[in-house]
Amino acid sequence: MKAVVYQGPHAIEVKQVPDAKIEKATDVLVKITTSNICGSDLHMYEGRTDFAAGNIFGHENLGVVIEIGNAVDRVKIGDRVCLPFNIGCGFCENCERGLTGYCLTANPGFAGAAYGFAGMGPYSGGQAELLRVPYADFNCLVLPPDAEEKENDYVMLSDIFPTGYHATELAGVQVGDSVVVYGAGPVGLMAAYSAIIKGASKVMVVDMHKDRLALAEKIGAIPIDDSDGSCVEQVLALTGGLGADRGCECVGYQCCDHKRHEIPNLTMNNLVKTVRATGGIGVVGVFIPQDPGAQDKLAQQGQIAFDMGQFWIKGQHIGTGQANVKAYNRKLCNLIAAGKAKPSFLISHELPLDKAVEAYENFDARNDGWTKVVLKPGK
Amino acid sequence: MKAVVYQGPHAIEVKQVPDAKIEKATDVLVKITTSNICGSDLHMYEGRTDFAAGNIFGHENLGVVIEIGNAVDRVKIGDRVCLPFNIGCGFCENCERGLTGYCLTANPGFAGAAYGFAGMGPYSGGQAELLRVPYADFNCLVLPPDAEEKENDYVMLSDIFPTGYHATELAGVQVGDSVVVYGAGPVGLMAAYSAIIKGASKVMVVDMHKDRLALAEKIGAIPIDDSDGSCVEQVLALTGGLGADRGCECVGYQCCDHKRHEIPNLTMNNLVKTVRATGGIGVVGVFIPQDPGAQDKLAQQGQIAFDMGQFWIKGQHIGTGQANVKAYNRKLCNLIAAGKAKPSFLISHELPLDKAVEAYENFDARNDGWTKVVLKPGK
Amino acid sequence: MKAVVYQGPHAIEVKQVPDAKIEKATDVLVKITTSNICGSDLHMYEGRTDFAAGNIFGHENLGVVIEIGNAVDRVKIGDRVCLPFNIGCGFCENCERGLTGYCLTANPGFAGAAYGFAGMGPYSGGQAELLRVPYADFNCLVLPPDAEEKENDYVMLSDIFPTGYHATELAGVQVGDSVVVYGAGPVGLMAAYSAIIKGASKVMVVDMHKDRLALAEKIGAIPIDDSDGSCVEQVLALTGGLGADRGCECVGYQCCDHKRHEIPNLTMNNLVKTVRATGGIGVVGVFIPQDPGAQDKLAQQGQIAFDMGQFWIKGQHIGTGQANVKAYNRKLCNLIAAGKAKPSFLISHELPLDKAVEAYENFDARNDGWTKVVLKPGK
Amino acid sequence: MKAVVYQGPHAIEVKQVPDAKIEKATDVLVKITTSNICGSDLHMYEGRTDFAAGNIFGHENLGVVIEIGNAVDRVKIGDRVCLPFNIGCGFCENCERGLTGYCLTANPGFAGAAYGFAGMGPYSGGQAELLRVPYADFNCLVLPPDAEEKENDYVMLSDIFPTGYHATELAGVQVGDSVVVYGAGPVGLMAAYSAIIKGASKVMVVDMHKDRLALAEKIGAIPIDDSDGSCVEQVLALTGGLGADRGCECVGYQCCDHKRHEIPNLTMNNLVKTVRATGGIGVVGVFIPQDPGAQDKLAQQGQIAFDMGQFWIKGQHIGTGQANVKAYNRKLCNLIAAGKAKPSFLISHELPLDKAVEAYENFDARNDGWTKVVLKPGK
Repeated sequence: MKAVVYQGPHAIEVKQVPDAKIEKATDVLVKITTSNICGSDLHMYEGRTDFAAGNIFGHENLGVVIEIGNAVDRVKIGDRVCLPFNIGCGFCENCERGLTGYCLTANPGFAGAAYGFAGMGPYSGGQAELLRVPYADFNCLVLPPDAEEKENDYVMLSDIFPTGYHATELAGVQVGDSVVVYGAGPVGLMAAYSAIIKGASKVMVVDMHKDRLALAEKIGAIPIDDSDGSCVEQVLALTGGLGADRGCECVGYQCCDHKRHEIPNLTMNNLVKTVRATGGIGVVGVFIPQDPGAQDKLAQQGQIAFDMGQFWIKGQHIGTGQANVKAYNRKLCNLIAAGKAKPSFLISHELPLDKAVEAYENFDARNDGWTKVVLKPGK
Repeated sequence: MKAVVYQGPHAIEVKQVPDAKIEKATDVLVKITTSNICGSDLHMYEGRTDFAAGNIFGHENLGVVIEIGNAVDRVKIGDRVCLPFNIGCGFCENCERGLTGYCLTANPGFAGAAYGFAGMGPYSGGQAELLRVPYADFNCLVLPPDAEEKENDYVMLSDIFPTGYHATELAGVQVGDSVVVYGAGPVGLMAAYSAIIKGASKVMVVDMHKDRLALAEKIGAIPIDDSDGSCVEQVLALTGGLGADRGCECVGYQCCDHKRHEIPNLTMNNLVKTVRATGGIGVVGVFIPQDPGAQDKLAQQGQIAFDMGQFWIKGQHIGTGQANVKAYNRKLCNLIAAGKAKPSFLISHELPLDKAVEAYENFDARNDGWTKVVLKPGK
Repeated sequence: MKAVVYQGPHAIEVKQVPDAKIEKATDVLVKITTSNICGSDLHMYEGRTDFAAGNIFGHENLGVVIEIGNAVDRVKIGDRVCLPFNIGCGFCENCERGLTGYCLTANPGFAGAAYGFAGMGPYSGGQAELLRVPYADFNCLVLPPDAEEKENDYVMLSDIFPTGYHATELAGVQVGDSVVVYGAGPVGLMAAYSAIIKGASKVMVVDMHKDRLALAEKIGAIPIDDSDGSCVEQVLALTGGLGADRGCECVGYQCCDHKRHEIPNLTMNNLVKTVRATGGIGVVGVFIPQDPGAQDKLAQQGQIAFDMGQFWIKGQHIGTGQANVKAYNRKLCNLIAAGKAKPSFLISHELPLDKAVEAYENFDARNDGWTKVVLKPGK
Repeated sequence: MKAVVYQGPHAIEVKQVPDAKIEKATDVLVKITTSNICGSDLHMYEGRTDFAAGNIFGHENLGVVIEIGNAVDRVKIGDRVCLPFNIGCGFCENCERGLTGYCLTANPGFAGAAYGFAGMGPYSGGQAELLRVPYADFNCLVLPPDAEEKENDYVMLSDIFPTGYHATELAGVQVGDSVVVYGAGPVGLMAAYSAIIKGASKVMVVDMHKDRLALAEKIGAIPIDDSDGSCVEQVLALTGGLGADRGCECVGYQCCDHKRHEIPNLTMNNLVKTVRATGGIGVVGVFIPQDPGAQDKLAQQGQIAFDMGQFWIKGQHIGTGQANVKAYNRKLCNLIAAGKAKPSFLISHELPLDKAVEAYENFDARNDGWTKVVLKPGK
């Protein structure tokens, strides 16, 4: 089969590899029809992780089941399924509480597994023609009849739509709230979109890229341009000086100031400043336990200089981590099926698998207009 | 009236001051019968805050109502009442959500007010013969008939029992959980006690003071002696290497390593290490936005070097801040009345108001056996 | 002042009565600019309650503060305020938990007080030129600067918008849910509207009045016409035979079958049938503890023949009761201010106070097109 | 193998039947060491259900795994496991939300499956030497090292301890609450025990059997003897006339008045009367959708004459249904392992399988002292 294979920092290749196949009785085999490139792929692509050369990328996958293991009960050949990026077993202590992003079985010795992801177990990615799906009855979201027609919407259920939604859950967004989202990349936009779906009264999105801010505005959010570093003042002005009820971090450890220097504590401390006393903060942007290549000494050890005093005095709370996709994908699927959500609005490029090299280069460079790329292995 | 008056760093005096009195129609006047010394009083006593000379200490107060304003409806002369340390108006946006520790009315320009407390508004403390109580219908907890007999239990409802309980709420402690509490001072012991009341299966308390650890053991917790800095290993060993389900920070910014050096990020990072992935952390130990006298540069600006990467990868959450006492004092009062809680177990000294100087000196020095002091103005 | 005064069954009069005035230091006096007629007024108007002749109607009130008691802190003369129909003290056990519809102070011996309402205390209603508001700092919702312009939206915050929202809270409506609402009167429409605001995927509204069903469709709900008694089949067909995730009862004890006979258990048992196993049911339609004039023997004693076996086997849950308006009015106010909610869509008639007689007659007859009447005392 | 086989109303036999065996790759086979008789078994034993002659009883099972299907990952041969009475698949919409009592897979066409239970699917019971366990990785609770020693405690995790706990969850019991439990049978006692574990301040248990009330008192509850029908007055007297904060129904449709007549609405209406306004009611006593043999006409159709008016005016809420055992068994297991819960206190008889006939006869007759019987197939 053809697949997008990591070769080393900033180098990938689309090439033939052995076919994915059923390995256990609870597996199914999926013919991938859509697989997205994610911002997290770029961390690995840039060589800032221990992702090994030869591995296949792709954790945002959708396709058609073509073979099932003999202990599979629910999923049928021919089902069009969307796969949560995190792989759960369905029966460990965390999975049974719904914390499927922290499965204790699928990646022994660590809480959490994923397809094609550094540190998340031995699972190949889906930027390929075929994908093996473990614990398939648990992991497959079988899509409604209109799945093919809305495939570019449903594929967002694999990661970024639930991840953006998770940010709003961690922050505690409720009807009528004001919300500030840091980052207008795909996840930040999905967080803003989720807050709007939940009935927030005012959603502000902070970024420096005008094309992304324009998308934020298009879905009904208030764009906050931080090109001059004034986002804190702007958010406070829009919230009567008190700050927003809730805040979402959708940038992560590589956040930059307006001069494009990495300032790892920038968004977290801005959140403390711009969220009201007693407010909630949800962090889905990735922070990592060590970053040996970082310039900042604290960052090398995975630390940030955090405004703990301000945070405590304001009585705020923070929730973090990868989304438990299965906790949200059914409900968000219902919205797509009912025509009440259309997350494909953020797709900028739909390309065949063969164009993956060009896609990674442009997306990694944050080139203007490359918001979100979906790859189509079959085309 | 007689009162405990702050004179300057490490100096107080018990002396005559003008009587407290009713100032607004919604006030009542209380004759104080018990007022505790709190660990937070020591921050002010040591001169590490802007608490002004001439102010009266005391935010853990209980007494008898002797006069009521003419708009007071519920509270009657003769009622024995326990006063939450935080003063709420009852009608601002935060009070109406139950966030009475963050009242927007009682201390204009800041979220939160208290008696005899730096930065918490112009209210005198209760280490005195009389106390003015604002918004009295809202703030007074009228005690049950056995109030006088169990006064040393009920007075704990003013602050440390609800504050310890708040730590367990912020951490999300549930039936069957394992819980680690950092700090075996009065608040840490109340957190451990609250976790036990809630049905935790295993409660571990970390400290270096043997007298305090002995009290922890007495109430059914597992004492963890960190005299050699091995608390992380000890907690992991007791929790199958995964960490506790929940953790409570009951020390604050002045936390010290086993050599008694202040290491402001010590307990927070130990919590990240010793709480399981997806677990919750509740922080009621005080952290302050600036601490000009600190040696640590980050600490001077109210920052700590926080293990953000580890925290995020583990998908933990943190809640912080002062307890909203009114959210808990009725239910904890019910437990005392029913004989199911007896928080007075941690009182080491019961002294007349006149002995306040000696009490502050010994408590501030953490002298052996001085766990908790209650002052009795009437005696 | 002029007021709408109850004279006896089906008889009211608009006439001069003594001016409302400040009676306690915590009161304010409001010049009413809008007061709605509510479905609950009709229960009293029809003489099915013990509402006494001479009483003034009106519990959905909005106006301008013209005088304040001397213990009022927050509310100012000139503030435009919307008054929750339920009157809370702000300091009893129920009010402090946010259960302001069940205040233990304002109507001694009963949990709950309201303006101009049978059994809810000695408070006059606001279908009048002036209204006394007790515990004013607690009860007044001070409106934003655009209050006058959007007065017909904001007045809905006094009762039906929060009441409809309450139905969805009691039922547990969440993002992506399917919801069935029984009753397309003003409250049912507000329940449907609230479910849509919360991100429900599918909202079905059951009624027999075509004008009301048309309004339901206009806001994005699916109208279910029960003119032939087939609503159960229709809802099951729309929900894959399993039933809706959540259901709302917005009719009450006077619910009728398609032949207009009162069948008091009809909507409750239909809800059990058309809500899925494990689903939630919220009941804001009024049921009363005794109804001596009812034909049905059970109904006379306030009982219904309830499908308990089916309810239990399906593991459903039911929440009931009057809305705690203050729990929701701020957040819904934010939505109106932000232009995200416009509940005035259901107003069919805006009339001066003098036309109250005509308004009651038409509204009570459920005459076609009389969906919701707002009275304007100043005009 | 030997098993307890249903022969017809009031007739069982202990006899040889074909061995249970692995049927699917996800099954395990368990050698039963303890299996309890449950109150629900009596409904079937008495012939009031459609349980077919030839079926094997037993849904409260514990034993040792002796064989595993080839797709089983987690459970190992030799593990001592406790089996939730409800059988879940782990991957349907309900199981993935934790509603494992309402599995949509294991018993097609109905929400919920169980071992040896009328209407709950084709699964044999465990009052036998061997038991087939479907979806074993999901359903088996692997017990801690002290499992054999505390087997009589751990076996209660299969049903009645989680079921009693579920009643308190449905009712919303919180720290400090007062709770009234109707029924001092095994489930009622477990509900009372759970409320005490959760920190309730006052737990009242209503029954007419003195031996059961004595057990309630022994665990710290207040026994309420309803031998003269005065339970409502007694509960109100103990709760200041307002009623308990929460109530639990642990009797079901066969509840009787003090003259031993079945009055199906008795406990439900008593709960409405004795729970406070805004309070919660949890119903785990079984109610059934039709009961053709009942004398009461409403009961024949599964209805009760319910005090809907009183229920609504008080703003109460009710939750119902079978416990989702997996939602609670881990946390309650932790308590047993830590020595903080010892539910075996209610066992009155421990008998070999061969004595099942005698056990059913005595338990069904509610003979004095026959509180709870555990059968030991291996002995």
